[in-house]
Amino acid sequence: MPPPAPKPNPQPLYTQVADAVAKLIGDGTLRPGERTPSLRAVCNQHGVSMSTAVQAFVELESRGLVEPRHKSGFFVKQPAPQMRAELPKPPRVPMAGSLGNLHASLFDAVASENVIALGGAVPGADILPTVKLNRMLAEKARHAGARGVAYDLPPGSEVLRRQISKRMARGGAIVAPAEIITTCGATEALMLCLRAVTRPGDVVAVESPTYFGILHVLEALSLRALEIPADPEHGMRLDVLQRVLQKQRVNACIALPAFSNPLGASMPDEAKQRLVAMLKEREIPLIEDDVFGALPFGPKRSRSCKAFDDAGLVLFCSSFSKTLAPGYRVGWVAPGRYYHAVRMAKLTHTLATATLPELAIAGFLAEGGYDHWLRSVRVIYKDNVTQMRRAILAEFPPGTTVTDPKGGFLLWVTMPPKVDALELYDRALAKGISIAPGHMFSPGQRHTNCIRISCGERWSPRIAGAIGTLGMLAKRLAV
Amino acid sequence: MPPPAPKPNPQPLYTQVADAVAKLIGDGTLRPGERTPSLRAVCNQHGVSMSTAVQAFVELESRGLVEPRHKSGFFVKQPAPQMRAELPKPPRVPMAGSLGNLHASLFDAVASENVIALGGAVPGADILPTVKLNRMLAEKARHAGARGVAYDLPPGSEVLRRQISKRMARGGAIVAPAEIITTCGATEALMLCLRAVTRPGDVVAVESPTYFGILHVLEALSLRALEIPADPEHGMRLDVLQRVLQKQRVNACIALPAFSNPLGASMPDEAKQRLVAMLKEREIPLIEDDVFGALPFGPKRSRSCKAFDDAGLVLFCSSFSKTLAPGYRVGWVAPGRYYHAVRMAKLTHTLATATLPELAIAGFLAEGGYDHWLRSVRVIYKDNVTQMRRAILAEFPPGTTVTDPKGGFLLWVTMPPKVDALELYDRALAKGISIAPGHMFSPGQRHTNCIRISCGERWSPRIAGAIGTLGMLAKRLAV
Repeated sequence: MPPPAPKPNPQPLYTQVADAVAKLIGDGTLRPGERTPSLRAVCNQHGVSMSTAVQAFVELESRGLVEPRHKSGFFVKQPAPQMRAELPKPPRVPMAGSLGNLHASLFDAVASENVIALGGAVPGADILPTVKLNRMLAEKARHAGARGVAYDLPPGSEVLRRQISKRMARGGAIVAPAEIITTCGATEALMLCLRAVTRPGDVVAVESPTYFGILHVLEALSLRALEIPADPEHGMRLDVLQRVLQKQRVNACIALPAFSNPLGASMPDEAKQRLVAMLKEREIPLIEDDVFGALPFGPKRSRSCKAFDDAGLVLFCSSFSKTLAPGYRVGWVAPGRYYHAVRMAKLTHTLATATLPELAIAGFLAEGGYDHWLRSVRVIYKDNVTQMRRAILAEFPPGTTVTDPKGGFLLWVTMPPKVDALELYDRALAKGISIAPGHMFSPGQRHTNCIRISCGERWSPRIAGAIGTLGMLAKRLAV
Repeated sequence: MPPPAPKPNPQPLYTQVADAVAKLIGDGTLRPGERTPSLRAVCNQHGVSMSTAVQAFVELESRGLVEPRHKSGFFVKQPAPQMRAELPKPPRVPMAGSLGNLHASLFDAVASENVIALGGAVPGADILPTVKLNRMLAEKARHAGARGVAYDLPPGSEVLRRQISKRMARGGAIVAPAEIITTCGATEALMLCLRAVTRPGDVVAVESPTYFGILHVLEALSLRALEIPADPEHGMRLDVLQRVLQKQRVNACIALPAFSNPLGASMPDEAKQRLVAMLKEREIPLIEDDVFGALPFGPKRSRSCKAFDDAGLVLFCSSFSKTLAPGYRVGWVAPGRYYHAVRMAKLTHTLATATLPELAIAGFLAEGGYDHWLRSVRVIYKDNVTQMRRAILAEFPPGTTVTDPKGGFLLWVTMPPKVDALELYDRALAKGISIAPGHMFSPGQRHTNCIRISCGERWSPRIAGAIGTLGMLAKRLAV
């Protein structure tokens, strides 16, 4: 009689322990971001030696389920953000590489006279109150004396902060001049806020799609973007955000409630209030990017999230780059309870904002030209957007949809799924037209059949022709 | 007969293995920054199981001898930088806290009319060519048209870069305008360079003492400062740097070869050449901060490190904040082989430099006023420094020494060891005088009996009086 067949070799002890912990993670007992039981606890619970427990955790780490944190033990790993998408697509273009180049090349296109630049969200120079502003700057320069060449250290020009405080009140946010810090545009404001409220490795909830500049800033600061789908009409999906917050650690949230970039969505005031409350419950700071907030098509601007902030958790960022003078590099932040951290970050970032451009903008705001100008420019942008929208719907392949924003000057175009926006980008650029492919607006490379079109330039036959060409190229890619 | 005494309990196996590896580290066989033998190799070598090897490394980590790096195994830990000082002192003031506040309050002092500000390295407003510059800005603003309000995206204004290229050639550095990127002052330039060449956790060699702004930037980017002692006459001690490079990993080096901040040291040209060669051998990027380079007391400026850079490893940073207009926020960087990375970093940092201030500076440089002004201002700064030096040596307690710079406008005062510079700072501020305590210039809090005095303001009875008061306060602390 042959000897009895050997029993199947049992799993090594450490694998059995790893399996037991993995089960706790799998069934949600241990949630992403939560600390796992300590090595000591695992030893006691499973009656194994310390070295077996250590090996079990090495195994769990190699399975991607836990991660060690310096001197704090092991934590349940966050699932990679792209796991959350409905249709995850493999990242074809690494963010830091080619998409970074795209970022630069969109701006190159704006600077080039030979390219019709529909990619960058830049206001047309002939729309801006160029002459008046430059005259104001010249006047300030002539009369500023020593003050004009001296550092205007953070928080920056008081006359400007007084004007900003007044204007923020129109969006319902009561913020004293002393609570505001001027910045070199909203880009710097955004980066200072993130430096103030996060540490490398932190998770930041963003809209999807969202402005690629935000994604690049997150990447530069080694932060992880967690994409929350955005509705083209109402912005960030708060139901999704709510579910995500229940499941995982989020260190900060960035929202563009007013005419978002790229969707042009407007978050309803009740939703803003709900968003602020939802984040307050967990003490999560909200960075509110309001660069398009002053550009509603209607006569009145809606309230800002900052208006609902009774805990100092909202960091409100904006600039005059979409409304007055991108080249003056004047923006601001009202950082709530993070005032001191943002001010310190500004000292190491650029030390100060340029003095005379600040004073020129303050002068323009104070002397009443701004409101008048805003009223007239709204009409222009509304017209640009309407014409562009109509042209796109007429020229692009059947099945194309276009957002219908209530302010700002951006359109988000969703083409049939077969159209690859990067391919369209290449072909359009070859014909002297620059667009922003959807890939740029998501770290998960989701919106591959979408493009963002800027209506910052006045509608013209040249632009109409460019839309005709784009439509023709898109139709070829759709079949 | 009693049973034989039990053998002394041997150390657990993993401790024995840990001891063996610790010995290799102790005797220098394994150097700081080097990868340790792999877990597998340790298993084979000591005939132990994987779990014992893992536990040995957990033990070594808890002893502070090794550190894990994500997916790369274990590395021998760098000894903490302050271990290298001749006289390590316990850090009394955490960098990010009170010293950060000091940074802000030095600038507050500059902005205050009630304080004699000798702490900030800020040129006196009455010394700067205020009227001419502001007039130039006014003229540019009047004639710039749409270009004045438009983004001047990186690399920034070409006319300005052409002027900068010409001036850099006087320091022996042949850099084309296309290799230069304009920035919001040297602060931004420095940060962009560090973002381009380092990752969080990297080690950056800096002079000690060095400009506190550099230390704050390192802190903001989670970089570790490795202090290389600097000689008051010749700057960074290359013999020490050489030894350090042989022993440990250094990811970047920051030097201020021309009238350094705070020492006012001038690195001889041969030393610059040697420094560049030494770093080139190990492909370590050198960030050269030249903000005082245009302010020698003699008629000629010396060569820059960039002049010796044949490998594109030198990132040359400077600005017009010490020579023309701090408030215009115009600086630049010539980043060598890191051009692309710095340009991308600029896009996420501030997007662009303010257009019209760039054009105003370019105009001032082009129209010949700059050289004339530099000639006259050198005389003023030299006089300020001479008078201040004499007064300090006369008024301060016996044993005080003062640097003797050949350019710039900073003095470094070393008082008797008993004098605590932070205490002096507090007492001086109470009397309306602001100084920069030595503590700020080293992460290891080394220079506790030193202060930095700025001679940026014209010598006056008011300043003479302040030095008298400071001397009296220092004398009281010296006994």
